[in-house]
Amino acid sequence: MKPKHTFLHCLVLLSTMYTATILAQTELASWSDSQAKNRLMEYVSTVTTKGSSFVDTEQRVAVFDNDGTLWAEQPIYFQLVFAMDRLKAMQSQHPEWKTEEPFKSALAGDVKSALSSHENLAKLIFASHAGMSQVEFKQAVKEWITTAKHPTTGRKYTEMVYQPMLEVLDYLRANGFKTYIVSGGGIDFMRVWAEEVYGIPPEQVIGSSVEKTFTFNQDGSAQITRQSELNFNNDKEGKPVAIDAHIGRRPLIAFGNSDGDLAMMQYTMAGSGKRLAVYIHHTDKEREWAYDRDSHIGSLDKGLDYATEHKDDGWIIVDMKKDWKVVFSE
Amino acid sequence: MKPKHTFLHCLVLLSTMYTATILAQTELASWSDSQAKNRLMEYVSTVTTKGSSFVDTEQRVAVFDNDGTLWAEQPIYFQLVFAMDRLKAMQSQHPEWKTEEPFKSALAGDVKSALSSHENLAKLIFASHAGMSQVEFKQAVKEWITTAKHPTTGRKYTEMVYQPMLEVLDYLRANGFKTYIVSGGGIDFMRVWAEEVYGIPPEQVIGSSVEKTFTFNQDGSAQITRQSELNFNNDKEGKPVAIDAHIGRRPLIAFGNSDGDLAMMQYTMAGSGKRLAVYIHHTDKEREWAYDRDSHIGSLDKGLDYATEHKDDGWIIVDMKKDWKVVFSE
Repeated sequence: MKPKHTFLHCLVLLSTMYTATILAQTELASWSDSQAKNRLMEYVSTVTTKGSSFVDTEQRVAVFDNDGTLWAEQPIYFQLVFAMDRLKAMQSQHPEWKTEEPFKSALAGDVKSALSSHENLAKLIFASHAGMSQVEFKQAVKEWITTAKHPTTGRKYTEMVYQPMLEVLDYLRANGFKTYIVSGGGIDFMRVWAEEVYGIPPEQVIGSSVEKTFTFNQDGSAQITRQSELNFNNDKEGKPVAIDAHIGRRPLIAFGNSDGDLAMMQYTMAGSGKRLAVYIHHTDKEREWAYDRDSHIGSLDKGLDYATEHKDDGWIIVDMKKDWKVVFSE
Repeated sequence: MKPKHTFLHCLVLLSTMYTATILAQTELASWSDSQAKNRLMEYVSTVTTKGSSFVDTEQRVAVFDNDGTLWAEQPIYFQLVFAMDRLKAMQSQHPEWKTEEPFKSALAGDVKSALSSHENLAKLIFASHAGMSQVEFKQAVKEWITTAKHPTTGRKYTEMVYQPMLEVLDYLRANGFKTYIVSGGGIDFMRVWAEEVYGIPPEQVIGSSVEKTFTFNQDGSAQITRQSELNFNNDKEGKPVAIDAHIGRRPLIAFGNSDGDLAMMQYTMAGSGKRLAVYIHHTDKEREWAYDRDSHIGSLDKGLDYATEHKDDGWIIVDMKKDWKVVFSE
C-alpha cells in the first residue's frame, strides 16, 4: 500500500469519526458531559462497530419504562388524573356515584381517600377504562391528552416528557435500535400519543391491559369491547414476561426509574454479551421532583442498591440534577 | 410544457409501470394468471399508489394464519406431532405415562385416542410444552424442526410451506407491508423457525401461549419458566383481540383457511377504506389435501359461505388446485 493512500485513508477515517462524534454530541445535547452519557455512548459504539461485541441490527432492542423514565409521574401517575377526569365526564350517567365510594371521593377531588386501597383503585380504573369500545376509549384519551394540564406546572402532560430521554430515543434509533415502551401504564392509553410524542409506534408499546372481547355484527361492523377485568399487570416480574411475549427477544438496553423496573433490567443484564441497565434517579427538586426509597410513586429502593453494587457491570444511575442540562422539552 | 418533455415523461412512466408489472409477475411466479392473483395485485397497487385509496407505509399491515395458510396441516397439526415426539423423548423421566392416559395412547402412537377430548389435548400440550424454561423449550423445537419428517411426504415440515404464499409474503413486504403471523399455534413454537422460513421476525409472530413466570437468581442469571396453564387461546374471536393487543392497528389484508380465521378476517374488513380478506381453499387432493366443511382439522364452513356471499366486497377464495402452479417450495 502506498504511503499516500494510507494517509488519505486515515484522513477520511478520522473525519468520519469526528463527524460521528459531533453528531452524537448534538443528538444528546441536553446531557452534561457526564460519566452516564459517556458510558451510554461508549456502549452504543461498542455494539454497533464491527468487532467481537458487534450486534446485528435486528437484535438491537432497547426498552423504556414510561412513568418517571420518559415523562414525569408526580404528584400522581398522569393516567390516574385521566381516570378522575373521565369519571367527572361520566358522572351524569351515574347518579349512584354521588354516594358510592370510591367514586364520591374521586369526584370530590379527594384523591387520597379515592386511592386508599387496591380494591378502590381497581374500581376507579374499571369504571373509567372499561365498558366501552376500543374506539370510544381511544377517542376519550385523545381529547384528554390534547387539553388537560398538569396541576402544578400548568403544562400539557405531553410537555412533561424528558428532553434528554427524547434525545436518547432518537440517538438509539439512529444507531439501528428498535425502541419499545414497557410500562405499568395502560397499553391503549399510551398508544394514542406515544407515536407523536416519542416516535414509538403502537406495536412497540407494551403495557397493562384489561380483558377484551370481539363482536361481529350482522351489518358488517365489528367491535372490540373493554371488560372490567384485569388482563395483565405489566409491573415487576410481569415486565420480562411481557417482553418475551411481545418481542420474543431479550433487550440489549433497559431504562427504568423504580423497583417496578428492576426485574426487566435484571432480565436484560442476564443475557449474553455486553448489555446496559440505566436507572433515572429523581434528584432534582428544583426542576422536577426529588424522591426515591420512600416515595409512594415510583419508589426506588432495592433497585438503587442493586444498581450501585453493580455499577462496574453495566449498570448506570443517571443523576437528573447533575447529568441533565434540561429536564422538560420546550 | 413542451411536447418533447411530455413524450419523454410518458416514456419514463410507461417503462416504470412495465418494469413494476414484470417484477410483480416474477414475484408471484407460482400463481396462475387467475382472478385471485389479479385481484390481490390490483388491491396492492391501489393502496400503494398516490390517490384517494393510498395508505401510508406504517398502516400497511397484513396478517396470516399459519396452519393450512402458510404451511400444511394434515393429517394433524404439525405442532401435535412435535408434542407426541417430545413425550417420547421425555418418557424415561415419566414411568407413570406407561399406564396413565392420554400418555399411554400418545406413546403407543394412537393419536385418535390420545386426542379424544379437549382435556386430553390440554394434558398432552402442557406435559410437552410446559414445566421448563423458555430457553430449553426453544432448543427442543429447534432440534425437532431440523430433523423431523412428515409421515406421508417424507419432507421436513419446513419444506411443507406453500411456495405461492412465500411469494405473497415477499411481494407484500416489497410493497411496504409489515407481515404478521396470527395463528392458533404456539407463539414460541413458531418463533423458533418463522424468521428463517418466512422472513417473519419473532416480534411479528402472534399465537397461543401458556402462562409464564420470571425468576431472578442470586448469581445474576434469570429465567422465564413455562407453566401448565393456558394464557391465551389465539383462535376465532381471540384473533382480533390478539391483533389489537400486539399490533394496535387493524390489518389491511388478512389471509386464512378455516372458520378459526373468520373473526380476524371480518375484523379486518370492518375497517374503513379498501381492505382484503383471502381464504385459501384446500381443493387439491393430488398435490396436497382436499377438505373444507367436514374436516376435523381446519374446517372451512361458515367462512366459505361468508366469503362466497361477499366476493364482490373484497373477499377472495383461492382455489389451490387452479390458482397455484406449484404447492410446496422446492
